[in-house]
Amino acid sequence: MNLEELDTPVLLIEQDALKRNLERMQEIILRAGITYRPHAKAHKSPDIARMQLDYGASGICCAKLSEAEVFAEEGIQNILITSPVIGASKIARLIELSSKATVMVVVDNEENLHDLSIFSAAAGINLKIIIEINIGQNRCGVEPEQPALSLANVVKKTKNLTLVGLQGYNGSIQMLKNFKKRSMEVQKAMLPLIKSANLVRNSGQDFSILTGGGTGTSTIDADAGILTEIQPGGYIFMDSCYQNVGWGNNNKIPFEQSLTVMSTVISSPSSNRLILDMGLKSISSDQGPPIVLDLPDAKFKFAGEEHSELFWETENSSLKIGDKVRFVPTHCDTTVNLYDNFFVYSGNSVNDIWPISARGKSQ
Amino acid sequence: MNLEELDTPVLLIEQDALKRNLERMQEIILRAGITYRPHAKAHKSPDIARMQLDYGASGICCAKLSEAEVFAEEGIQNILITSPVIGASKIARLIELSSKATVMVVVDNEENLHDLSIFSAAAGINLKIIIEINIGQNRCGVEPEQPALSLANVVKKTKNLTLVGLQGYNGSIQMLKNFKKRSMEVQKAMLPLIKSANLVRNSGQDFSILTGGGTGTSTIDADAGILTEIQPGGYIFMDSCYQNVGWGNNNKIPFEQSLTVMSTVISSPSSNRLILDMGLKSISSDQGPPIVLDLPDAKFKFAGEEHSELFWETENSSLKIGDKVRFVPTHCDTTVNLYDNFFVYSGNSVNDIWPISARGKSQ
Repeated sequence: MNLEELDTPVLLIEQDALKRNLERMQEIILRAGITYRPHAKAHKSPDIARMQLDYGASGICCAKLSEAEVFAEEGIQNILITSPVIGASKIARLIELSSKATVMVVVDNEENLHDLSIFSAAAGINLKIIIEINIGQNRCGVEPEQPALSLANVVKKTKNLTLVGLQGYNGSIQMLKNFKKRSMEVQKAMLPLIKSANLVRNSGQDFSILTGGGTGTSTIDADAGILTEIQPGGYIFMDSCYQNVGWGNNNKIPFEQSLTVMSTVISSPSSNRLILDMGLKSISSDQGPPIVLDLPDAKFKFAGEEHSELFWETENSSLKIGDKVRFVPTHCDTTVNLYDNFFVYSGNSVNDIWPISARGKSQ
Repeated sequence: MNLEELDTPVLLIEQDALKRNLERMQEIILRAGITYRPHAKAHKSPDIARMQLDYGASGICCAKLSEAEVFAEEGIQNILITSPVIGASKIARLIELSSKATVMVVVDNEENLHDLSIFSAAAGINLKIIIEINIGQNRCGVEPEQPALSLANVVKKTKNLTLVGLQGYNGSIQMLKNFKKRSMEVQKAMLPLIKSANLVRNSGQDFSILTGGGTGTSTIDADAGILTEIQPGGYIFMDSCYQNVGWGNNNKIPFEQSLTVMSTVISSPSSNRLILDMGLKSISSDQGPPIVLDLPDAKFKFAGEEHSELFWETENSSLKIGDKVRFVPTHCDTTVNLYDNFFVYSGNSVNDIWPISARGKSQ
C-alpha cells in the first residue's frame, strides 16, 4: 500500500529514520558507558519499546501508572514510573503491577512511603523506590541534600521498601538554544543530585541508579558521566521545536524527524487558500503550530478542531482538492496521544501499523 | 461509588446540569418552531446523542465521516456530516454508511459532486446533498449567490444526487462578547444564506433545510427564524470561554457548566505550591488554561503533558497530597477527545459511565 492511499488525518513514522535514531542513541550510550531507559510517554507503543530494548535500553520509563500497566501487559519487564503514585486505589494497582514486571516508582514525600509500605507488606513484596530530587524543574521532587537524606532515611527504616536510586530531571533546560549554556545548566543541575547522592551514601545507604535527563541534554548527560542512566523520550521522533536548538559538534543534530501527520485538502475556497482535514483534534497546538513539509511559501493556521488552513501571499501554486499535505508536529508527545495507531513506512510504501496502546493512559 | 473514589485524571459530567441543558435547548427550539441537530463532535457519545434525540433533536451532526460511522453503528438514524468527504476511499465508506442510516453530506465543489455521483450510482442509491455556503467563516463553503446557484445546478443535473438543503455556519461570531453585536452579526451572516436559498428556489429547485448556527448564537438563531435547524454542540457542557460572553435577557446564560476534569494533588513541594496529576494530555490548552473550581485564590499553570501546578501568592490554605481538585475546561471538544469515558454523577455519587465511542475519530 502506498502512503497516498491512506485515509487522513493519519500519523506516520518513517521507519528508517526511526531506526537511525535508535542506533544513534545506542552509540551515544555505549560511548559513555552508561545505560538508558527511554521515556515511553513519547510513543506509548509496545512495538517501539521492544525496539528500544533491542537497541540496548535497560528498561523504560512511564509517566503514569496506567501507562506502565499497558506496557507490563505487553511483556515489557523493567519499568520506572517517573511520577509519584498517590492514593489507595492506585497503590493497590501498583502492587498488582509489580507482580507482572520489575517496577520502580518515584517518591518525594514521607506519607507516600508509608502508604506504599502498608500495601507492599500486605502483598509480601519489596517495592523498589527512587527518590525524586528537585534539581531546578520545580515540579515534583524533594529538595536536595538534607531533605533528600531525611527521606532516604525514612525509606531505610520503612519495611518492604528498598531505595534503588535517585531521580533528578530538569525539563526546563532541555530546549535551551545555546549548546554551551545548556551544557553549563546540566552541570549546575547535576550538583544538587551529586551532593544528595553523596549524603545518602555516606549515611550508609547504598543504591545504584542516578536517573534523569532528556533528549535535549542526552549527549551532554552522556559526556558528563554523572547519571547512570538517561531518560530520553522524543529522540525517536524529534519535535520540530528541537530544530532551533544548538547541538555543539558543528550544530549537527544527532537525531532525525521521523514523525509526521498527513492530511488532505478538502476545500479550495480561493486561489490562495486551502482547507485541510486536520485540526486541533489531530495535531497538537500546545507548543505552537506544526511545520508544513515541502511547501516553503505556504502559511499555516488552525481553523478549529477539525480543520486548518494553508494560505499564500499570492497564489497556491500547485495543490488541489484531494492532495495530501504533511506536517511535523511541534510536540510529538501530545500529538501521539491523539491517535490509536502509527502507520509505518519506507519510501512511499506502508510497512506496518503499530498500535498506540497506551494512548490516553494519563492516570 | 463516591466521586472521590475515582482514579484521576477523570472526566466528569454532572448529570442534572446536563439534563437541564437538554431541557433548555428543547424549550428554545419549541418556542421558535424550528428543529435542532446537535453537533456530536462536542461529546462523541452515543449515550448523549440518544438523550438529545429524546429531547427533540431531529438527528445529529458529525464533523467527520469516521465519527458518523461510530454513531450509525450505535443506531443513530439521521446524520449530517458537516465537512466535505473527499477521495475514493472515504466516499466508498460514505456510501456504505448510507446503507445503515439516513446520511446527508456537505459539498462545496463540483468535482466532489461528480465523485459522489459515481459511487452513488454504482450502489444504486440517491445521496442527500447539503451545499455549504461561506457566510463569513472563510473555511469551507462555496461563495454565496451565483456560485452557490451554479453548484446547485450541478447537483440538479447530476444523477443519484438530491439537494436537500444549504448549510451556513460562522464559528467566528459564536463567542462575540457583546450580545447585541452578536445578534447583528447573525443577521449579517444570514443574508447571503437567504439570498442563495432564494436564487436556488427561484431557479426551480426546492429543498427543505437551512442548517447552521452554534451554541453561542442558539437563542439568536432561534428568534431570527431563518435557519430551519440549528447545530449547537457545546451547550450540553458549556466551555468556560462562554462565561465571558453576554447573553441578553439580563445576561442570564441559558446553559450550565456540566463538564469538569478531576485531578489529584501528587506533590506538595512548598507551602504555596502543589503539583497535580493533570497536564496537557488530560485537559486541553488550545483556548487557554482551565478554570480551577472552588479555589478562588489559586493560580494555575501547566507543567508539561502529565502535570500542572497550583500556586498561591502566600500560602496554600488547605490542600494536601491526595486531595482532589476539579477544573472546567476552556474547550470541551478537545478535552473530551482525550478521554475514553465520561463518569456521570449527581451530588457526590457516580451514576454511570458513558463511553466516548467516537474519541479520536478525526477522519
